[in-house]
Amino acid sequence: MAKDNLTAVLHGINDLRLEQRPIPEISDEEVLIAMDSVGICGSDVHYLTKGRIGHFVVTKPMVIGHESAGVVAKVGSKVKNLVVGDRVAIEPGVPCYKCDHCKQGSYNLCPDMAFCATPPYDGNLTRYYKHAADFCFKLPDHVSMEEGALLEPLSVGVHACKRAGVTLGSKVLILGAGPIGLVSLLVAQSMGATEILITDLVQQRLDVAKELGATHTLLLKRDETSEQTLERVRKTMSAQPDISIDCCGAESSTRLSIFATRSGGVVVIVGMGPAEMNLPLFNALAREVDIRGIFRYCNDYSAALALVASGRVNVKRLVTHHFDITETQKAFETSRDGLDGAIKVMIHVQARNANNPIKF
Amino acid sequence: MAKDNLTAVLHGINDLRLEQRPIPEISDEEVLIAMDSVGICGSDVHYLTKGRIGHFVVTKPMVIGHESAGVVAKVGSKVKNLVVGDRVAIEPGVPCYKCDHCKQGSYNLCPDMAFCATPPYDGNLTRYYKHAADFCFKLPDHVSMEEGALLEPLSVGVHACKRAGVTLGSKVLILGAGPIGLVSLLVAQSMGATEILITDLVQQRLDVAKELGATHTLLLKRDETSEQTLERVRKTMSAQPDISIDCCGAESSTRLSIFATRSGGVVVIVGMGPAEMNLPLFNALAREVDIRGIFRYCNDYSAALALVASGRVNVKRLVTHHFDITETQKAFETSRDGLDGAIKVMIHVQARNANNPIKF
Amino acid sequence: MAKDNLTAVLHGINDLRLEQRPIPEISDEEVLIAMDSVGICGSDVHYLTKGRIGHFVVTKPMVIGHESAGVVAKVGSKVKNLVVGDRVAIEPGVPCYKCDHCKQGSYNLCPDMAFCATPPYDGNLTRYYKHAADFCFKLPDHVSMEEGALLEPLSVGVHACKRAGVTLGSKVLILGAGPIGLVSLLVAQSMGATEILITDLVQQRLDVAKELGATHTLLLKRDETSEQTLERVRKTMSAQPDISIDCCGAESSTRLSIFATRSGGVVVIVGMGPAEMNLPLFNALAREVDIRGIFRYCNDYSAALALVASGRVNVKRLVTHHFDITETQKAFETSRDGLDGAIKVMIHVQARNANNPIKF
Amino acid sequence: MAKDNLTAVLHGINDLRLEQRPIPEISDEEVLIAMDSVGICGSDVHYLTKGRIGHFVVTKPMVIGHESAGVVAKVGSKVKNLVVGDRVAIEPGVPCYKCDHCKQGSYNLCPDMAFCATPPYDGNLTRYYKHAADFCFKLPDHVSMEEGALLEPLSVGVHACKRAGVTLGSKVLILGAGPIGLVSLLVAQSMGATEILITDLVQQRLDVAKELGATHTLLLKRDETSEQTLERVRKTMSAQPDISIDCCGAESSTRLSIFATRSGGVVVIVGMGPAEMNLPLFNALAREVDIRGIFRYCNDYSAALALVASGRVNVKRLVTHHFDITETQKAFETSRDGLDGAIKVMIHVQARNANNPIKF
Repeated sequence: MAKDNLTAVLHGINDLRLEQRPIPEISDEEVLIAMDSVGICGSDVHYLTKGRIGHFVVTKPMVIGHESAGVVAKVGSKVKNLVVGDRVAIEPGVPCYKCDHCKQGSYNLCPDMAFCATPPYDGNLTRYYKHAADFCFKLPDHVSMEEGALLEPLSVGVHACKRAGVTLGSKVLILGAGPIGLVSLLVAQSMGATEILITDLVQQRLDVAKELGATHTLLLKRDETSEQTLERVRKTMSAQPDISIDCCGAESSTRLSIFATRSGGVVVIVGMGPAEMNLPLFNALAREVDIRGIFRYCNDYSAALALVASGRVNVKRLVTHHFDITETQKAFETSRDGLDGAIKVMIHVQARNANNPIKF
Repeated sequence: MAKDNLTAVLHGINDLRLEQRPIPEISDEEVLIAMDSVGICGSDVHYLTKGRIGHFVVTKPMVIGHESAGVVAKVGSKVKNLVVGDRVAIEPGVPCYKCDHCKQGSYNLCPDMAFCATPPYDGNLTRYYKHAADFCFKLPDHVSMEEGALLEPLSVGVHACKRAGVTLGSKVLILGAGPIGLVSLLVAQSMGATEILITDLVQQRLDVAKELGATHTLLLKRDETSEQTLERVRKTMSAQPDISIDCCGAESSTRLSIFATRSGGVVVIVGMGPAEMNLPLFNALAREVDIRGIFRYCNDYSAALALVASGRVNVKRLVTHHFDITETQKAFETSRDGLDGAIKVMIHVQARNANNPIKF
Repeated sequence: MAKDNLTAVLHGINDLRLEQRPIPEISDEEVLIAMDSVGICGSDVHYLTKGRIGHFVVTKPMVIGHESAGVVAKVGSKVKNLVVGDRVAIEPGVPCYKCDHCKQGSYNLCPDMAFCATPPYDGNLTRYYKHAADFCFKLPDHVSMEEGALLEPLSVGVHACKRAGVTLGSKVLILGAGPIGLVSLLVAQSMGATEILITDLVQQRLDVAKELGATHTLLLKRDETSEQTLERVRKTMSAQPDISIDCCGAESSTRLSIFATRSGGVVVIVGMGPAEMNLPLFNALAREVDIRGIFRYCNDYSAALALVASGRVNVKRLVTHHFDITETQKAFETSRDGLDGAIKVMIHVQARNANNPIKF
Repeated sequence: MAKDNLTAVLHGINDLRLEQRPIPEISDEEVLIAMDSVGICGSDVHYLTKGRIGHFVVTKPMVIGHESAGVVAKVGSKVKNLVVGDRVAIEPGVPCYKCDHCKQGSYNLCPDMAFCATPPYDGNLTRYYKHAADFCFKLPDHVSMEEGALLEPLSVGVHACKRAGVTLGSKVLILGAGPIGLVSLLVAQSMGATEILITDLVQQRLDVAKELGATHTLLLKRDETSEQTLERVRKTMSAQPDISIDCCGAESSTRLSIFATRSGGVVVIVGMGPAEMNLPLFNALAREVDIRGIFRYCNDYSAALALVASGRVNVKRLVTHHFDITETQKAFETSRDGLDGAIKVMIHVQARNANNPIKF
């Protein structure tokens, strides 16, 4: 095995460095993974530019990256579900397994979760990374490594749509056509939503949404009032949406979500906004419009993989840019600044499209 | 039948008059009811003092009253579930039966709901009142008229606890020990909650709560910070509550509900506060604490009646004051000003405890 | 309006006659419908050949037909949702609206349901038929009358898949590729099932299933043991199905459903078999495999219509034969005997594909 | 620590021996427990008399016992929730934590579950037993050891009532007033059931049921027909039960459960009967009466403990007989033969009512 373990490490605000790290030793229930593809997430960029998200603060050097796939290079002695050479998508959080949240099927709420690239835990934009075998999902041959990495944002969409209760015939409003808005669109559609309006400030993103199956798109204008936006949403949809999925998290979009949703409907808020918000709570309460947040995902990777493997959704369409790990700095700049219509930026640790070139 | 149909009519802000009204004619599926007991609700007082609740505005004289029970005096030709002389509790809202909300089992959200004492619909603090027979619930002999009237607030508690998902072993925080806080307490307990902390600013109310089964009470102090209150809640309960039921609706209590509830828990807000609120939404979203409102009740009267009839709860304990219909003015003042430790004020249209004195 | 009201009336076992009936008078909340398309259901054939289904017995002449669509010819004075000329699909059962089942959103269980072509209620294979306006669903222009009629079996599929809890990534086994098996396939797919195995004894039906999107098909053999069938199901699917939908209702298929389903999964039985069955109940109980029946549908027409209108499913592919109402006898023979690979037989009361030729 | 580790070992059918076993060594996440109280379960007796339950076969000597509580005598190095001297109830099954069932909150369905006294795993009717610390529940001081042991059957009741969906106002029919019927009664009541009819062939058991809060009891007669029993159930309850809980598992009781339950209701079958049963499936399906089994329990111990600790239920009333571990043989005979009106037989490994006599 190569000794090279080039790794992208965040040392502080806007201080991202490529450096060599030791190849990790695995325990009995872990696998060592030769990383292949790692997507850049909004949270990665947020840590880069702000050094924190909420109470998660980067206080020491942290490896970045958590949307990823790779090839199994070594297996622990008790691992049964994987063998060397298996191509896998990596669900990036490993919980304690034993607290009430874990036992009740909500391991995403486990207080002892070790999650890639969330302080103090290292991520996996690196050549060799070790992970709990039971959180690695073997990819069928026809699913590419990039798609494997994209299961991470897709799982956010799965979790959002499950929490929202999307079902056959649902009318859905999605606010924001960035990566999370688009995966929510793909999943809502796949769960039976028959009318989906998606909004954004950027026409280019709406074009992608249309291509991916949105029944309506709405280009928001920076200078219109919230009443005007609401009015345009109402005119565009055949009825008030059963479900609104707010993928922006701005106060204005959360407010719009509440006002737009039909009585008895659900507002799911995926985008994380400011700590405090001024909300029309009375409107939501008196109409029994439920407000639900999303924290990552839980038991959603299998469904996301099945969806991609079935060929029903074209998740690759989200990737607008590709970079080699040695170009990590440029990749992050592209993602951060939304350069060239960037939606999802993918970093390749192995030669692109290699799809399992490594023999062990 | 008597010609007397003395009726309490709200003519404007603080303008409540007793006047004669014609005895109503019933249709085929209605019953005429000789009213017996009518409780005063916070919303009644609100209409009296403000002339409106949200977008519901009193623009013409409106009969007040909707927490009620009486005796069937006449039955329509198609009525099968009731006969003259039956003692009944009246569920005060009649929906359209035919819209999607009605067909899907959420008739409380029916946009065409005719609800007693919600403009433009008359209430039933009157001697004779007509109602849809299928929204009248026959009382067993051992359930008193007062208890029948109290099924209305009790149904709010049922709806709140069902929406909250109270179940065996739930830990529940209830904010506010007024009538709605107390019925929520009774119901939460009856659905299996094993730890219930209830808070209020008035010790007298907490004493009643304790008597009714609260495992903990907490007297709030007007001069403490929200952090201090939260800290005291945390110290009092054995763990973070699974469910918080906010029966105040003030911004401070809703904020406390969110902060106090465990990750993955539920905040149900029953008390209606201001149109806009500043909320720690990020805290709720990132911990998947769901926020749910309550609009009246739906399919809850039967359970409320079964609960009272089973003898499990002492709902009568909520009634602190009794008045005759001729004393309506004084009854409302008592309720409005919380005089003499008033919790629930009951108005008797028939002689008190008559319990079906009328023969037809 | 024409005086002709040719009507297909079942007078007894194998005694189906075409005869004139008076054009019905409508009440305030009803519409008169000029019928266009009426599909033949297995239950229609069952009444024709057996004179009964369970405790529903044809004791007097009954108009047959309940999978239908037509054009509104007259509207009652209180009807708001429809105007003359509207093309509508007809949900064929009208409940009492007022019992507990109706109020709780399960009107399909209403004991006073008046359901087309279920004794003692007349069906609608006739030129003019009246119906409750709120159970008529306006079709968009691009949805054909045949598709409108097909919403009825499609709604059975919707109800089955909702009761089964089909969701993103579900693995589903469907037993029987007749009309109900095929609509269950279409709906399961639309709700996110990513692996669907469908079985039948007739290869032709499996070919249609494959064309409609089944991921696997399995031709059953009359001479194989149940163990052999189970073994072949196991080998064909990637894992035990989460859900089995038994559209046969034979003891052998229900037994197979139970054995095949994974622990914690669901068996939904749509096909109605014998009154009594010998079942491996211990196997189901000890693995918490739930057994659920389906009685018609409830609040499912809107979703079925949205699904067809969205263009996602090709429900027309089910129709293998077309007849004019004057050929009703031949139509029923074709359906009954499964002639020429008959799956769904459609009877046209108006000239085929007329799609709203009538002007009023 | 004492060297004595007297242990009850099942060597074959009706061959139960008391013998010395080594005191077990614990791992980092385990605790060693000085056992105090162990109840005898029907399954223990079944293994004794038949040597098997379903496909679980006793093929080598197996320690018996799984309804138990004891005192922590040693803690592993990573254990945080317990210290030496803690009095604990033992949830007797430890799952793999990592399969889909475990991650989704259904660890009771884990195929790798190691469950006390289910072959090939040893039980804990022994002086010293080791267990996973996270499946030990610390008892408050006022909860006795016997009550701790009784949490095991009580958890079965919790799981049954949760799976049944018991809620406020539920009408429940319970078939069988043995230990499981009685705990189901206690739990159903605590979750809000307001009418509970319980049946049995033994009046003495019905008397206990009445004492514990059953609203109705019905003594079954061996010579009556199933129609007669059904008729008597109908006459006794105010309406058809929403839920039937079959704690017998005999074909006759399961059939009665189906026929008795209201349309749209639920039959939960707790008692395990024969592998095959002849059932009126059509009746259940056409009325959407769901049939659900119970396999042990899952995430139910906390609720069971909270229920007992709250003082709401008198679970101790189930214990009719007490024996010392040295009298194990006699204890099993009493339980097996239902001698002296035996309901629950409790074996004391420590002096009875010692309640934590051991100092370490």
